[in-house]
Amino acid sequence: MTATPSRRAGGRAARKASRAAPLSDAMRPIRPGMEGGRYRPLTDTDMTNIHNSVLDALEQIGLADAPQSGVDYLTGAGAIQGDDGRIRFPRALIEDTIAKANREITLFGRDPKRDMNLAGAKVHYGTAGAAVHLVDIEGKNYRHCTLQDLHDAARISDVLDNIHFVQRPMVCRDITDNYEMDLNTLYGCTAGTTKHVGTSFTDPSYVKGALEMLHLIAGGEDKWRERPFVSNSNCFVVPPMKFATESCQVMEECIKGGMPILLLSAGMAGATTPSTIAGGIVQATAECMAGLVYVNAVKPGHTAIFGTWPFGLDLRTGAMTGASAEQALLSSGCAQMHKYYGLPGGAVGGIADAKLPDMQAGWEMMCSNVMAGLSGLNMVYEAAGMHASLLGFCLESLILGDDLIGHAMRCVRGIEVTEETMAVDQIRQVCIGGPGHYLGTDQTLARMESDYVYPALGNRMSPKEWDENGKPDLIANAIARKEQILSNRSAARFDPMVDAEIRRRFNIHLPA
Amino acid sequence: MTATPSRRAGGRAARKASRAAPLSDAMRPIRPGMEGGRYRPLTDTDMTNIHNSVLDALEQIGLADAPQSGVDYLTGAGAIQGDDGRIRFPRALIEDTIAKANREITLFGRDPKRDMNLAGAKVHYGTAGAAVHLVDIEGKNYRHCTLQDLHDAARISDVLDNIHFVQRPMVCRDITDNYEMDLNTLYGCTAGTTKHVGTSFTDPSYVKGALEMLHLIAGGEDKWRERPFVSNSNCFVVPPMKFATESCQVMEECIKGGMPILLLSAGMAGATTPSTIAGGIVQATAECMAGLVYVNAVKPGHTAIFGTWPFGLDLRTGAMTGASAEQALLSSGCAQMHKYYGLPGGAVGGIADAKLPDMQAGWEMMCSNVMAGLSGLNMVYEAAGMHASLLGFCLESLILGDDLIGHAMRCVRGIEVTEETMAVDQIRQVCIGGPGHYLGTDQTLARMESDYVYPALGNRMSPKEWDENGKPDLIANAIARKEQILSNRSAARFDPMVDAEIRRRFNIHLPA
Repeated sequence: MTATPSRRAGGRAARKASRAAPLSDAMRPIRPGMEGGRYRPLTDTDMTNIHNSVLDALEQIGLADAPQSGVDYLTGAGAIQGDDGRIRFPRALIEDTIAKANREITLFGRDPKRDMNLAGAKVHYGTAGAAVHLVDIEGKNYRHCTLQDLHDAARISDVLDNIHFVQRPMVCRDITDNYEMDLNTLYGCTAGTTKHVGTSFTDPSYVKGALEMLHLIAGGEDKWRERPFVSNSNCFVVPPMKFATESCQVMEECIKGGMPILLLSAGMAGATTPSTIAGGIVQATAECMAGLVYVNAVKPGHTAIFGTWPFGLDLRTGAMTGASAEQALLSSGCAQMHKYYGLPGGAVGGIADAKLPDMQAGWEMMCSNVMAGLSGLNMVYEAAGMHASLLGFCLESLILGDDLIGHAMRCVRGIEVTEETMAVDQIRQVCIGGPGHYLGTDQTLARMESDYVYPALGNRMSPKEWDENGKPDLIANAIARKEQILSNRSAARFDPMVDAEIRRRFNIHLPA
Repeated sequence: MTATPSRRAGGRAARKASRAAPLSDAMRPIRPGMEGGRYRPLTDTDMTNIHNSVLDALEQIGLADAPQSGVDYLTGAGAIQGDDGRIRFPRALIEDTIAKANREITLFGRDPKRDMNLAGAKVHYGTAGAAVHLVDIEGKNYRHCTLQDLHDAARISDVLDNIHFVQRPMVCRDITDNYEMDLNTLYGCTAGTTKHVGTSFTDPSYVKGALEMLHLIAGGEDKWRERPFVSNSNCFVVPPMKFATESCQVMEECIKGGMPILLLSAGMAGATTPSTIAGGIVQATAECMAGLVYVNAVKPGHTAIFGTWPFGLDLRTGAMTGASAEQALLSSGCAQMHKYYGLPGGAVGGIADAKLPDMQAGWEMMCSNVMAGLSGLNMVYEAAGMHASLLGFCLESLILGDDLIGHAMRCVRGIEVTEETMAVDQIRQVCIGGPGHYLGTDQTLARMESDYVYPALGNRMSPKEWDENGKPDLIANAIARKEQILSNRSAARFDPMVDAEIRRRFNIHLPA
């Protein structure tokens, strides 16, 4: 019989071995879905005032341009179409919708361990967007992005602990046919990760083919409907206060097919929303509320994420900026309104205006990511990899984003205050007749892994060690990590029979 | 008579001219001393529990190693020295001290426009530390730092809007005599900036000379005492729970000379404070509270900043880390305890572990800076320029830090919610019979400068513009800005007569 050394008896070697072993999920210092909400940019009065403004806007201004099917659904639910064609929403209809909407949302992964529950102030981070460039970091170059780039982004995200979902971050510009592009986008993402995937269909007629592919992947329509692992991002409004006719029709098809909906209102402060932060929040909230009425009119209780995505604008130039301080406030304020309603919601965080993953990118990405998390935003979209105000996606930045988001998540976890953590007894033991320091105490060792987050690529060496180690470069290390991930066989690949059947029915542009 | 075009009549050119004019202070989107406090990492119960633990620690454990003068002051105030030599603090003494301590603190600048009022949750950012290296960014090299480097840092800080005070960030390693080093440090900082300066004296006997120099600069002892523009950073404790004998003696001399005191408790979680965040906050708060009793025993109501500076440690290696998520929580939690007591306080934010101003530095510096600000920390020390966990200071990073802190400050300013900013009327006008967008509306133009913060070096170009402009490099631009600042004549220079007199009495190592 071999004696198993106990933790204490084994000394340094045993402690080292124990440290090298992966932590159980319960012990991990951070995990998806930690509760935020300690940052509240709005007072209670602010929230009530915003809510009342939202009700006013919906009742008095309403939304134009609903498709006829939408007009029928909405007026059937109690909305009123005016002579000007706008759909207006009585206050009681909004209050009813808030009360009845589904707030017990789980977004499923192909792997059930990767499901995300969006209750309360549980926070998740992931990719999103529709970048048209890949940032080629070695050439400092922006080039058209491809299906392969998208698939690589999904594969990389699949192995990064702190990327919790993969909404398609790039447009496949190497596919010219829109239907093939949408279907290959779906394939490229889902074949790369078993985490929840988000995508967006450009035409209502494309949804049928997409569902056919999803049924194949799931192993049947019933299995798909039981655990839909792909959601559709619907830009259902053209701000200010107009329905996006075609996107609404896509939405109706997705709802019928059992696909969760991200109700996405993407205004720009000073262009398509008021220039004030409060005005941006009011309008985005009003628009998403109209969308929520719509979804619940099509199918009561259908899974919908309240996607208030107002963006910032550089008012000097009229150009988009996704990285401003105003952006961080817009998203955090929206998150607090989601909590006010108790509705699962999402907004943007983590976008850089910087073209490359430099110091500017670091500060921009952290600011909105940590504030979104602290405000309890359920879904932080665009959280990693996104540069040039959404125009470029960078795989190395995605990898570094995993460290950045882990850092933010530790902040979201917050401060545990208990008798044990306040540690007066420990202070006493150390100070009075004790060693006069806390190094190596049981309490310190016990906290080393359960309480502290360590960066994977972030460098904590002293200048001396750093020099002796050849001054490791952050970007070079991110490139190496990317190459290592992409050289491995993906664990998310489909069963070969399923894959063959998909390829038989659809023109898949990725090599098998 | 030349007609002055009105804003509206003048069109684009007039608007452009009006945009180019500097904003009045009241109109500026950000300014020193904005109110934080919307981020509250601790619940009310947490704060009460921490306070009770602080009282327990002070009453039961107390502090060792007070100098005899300190023992006399403290026991005179009601503290009790035990047979073990430790000074223990009855609860009533602490509560009395909290009630009587000076909470109306203004830290003066040589220029009165740069005074800082530390009431409530007013937030200020500045440098600090005692880096032993200058980060030579062009050579990617850490070299010994000098008095000239320190003076350059002060001169650069003097012109950066978002650096509100200059606590000496570097040790002058080119001066071997400790007295000359302390006096030249004082000279190097104060000759470089008219903002409030912080320094630290290593020996009680040096204070006399320092005061002599300060009286010369101020134009007399009375003028110095009226508006003391330099504070002393006193590491008055050696955590855990021991007074730093010599530093306490320095503190007594500074108090007598009318110099504000930063009561600095700089423990390290897991080494000299408990490894838990709550434990670090308890111990730092207890230690600063003991310091506050001390200061008020020497001189009731003397200006003292509650300097809870617990640092993080990388428990895997035992090395210092100043940039962790745990650090951001330590400082934010401490800030909230300052608010609990209503005492002006300071802590660290903005330190990078990164050796260079890269993406890691950006995310590290932003995380703790923005959280400190949102938590309402009055004085955020080490907020810019600090790398390698305090070992290296970087002038280019200091310059970039001005953008970074401006970004954080806009977040601290928060969201104004009024009828006007919620803008329902504006939404109505734009949507119903209006242009369908907000570009160019009076409301949008009015907000462009009063509400939005624009980075100076942060780049918001589109990839196309960026490419056409030769892909401007963040670091290269920071180097150019540094050279431009240092090539200008400093506005902070002393009157030549005063300078000559200082140089006659002290061995100043900076060229005149």
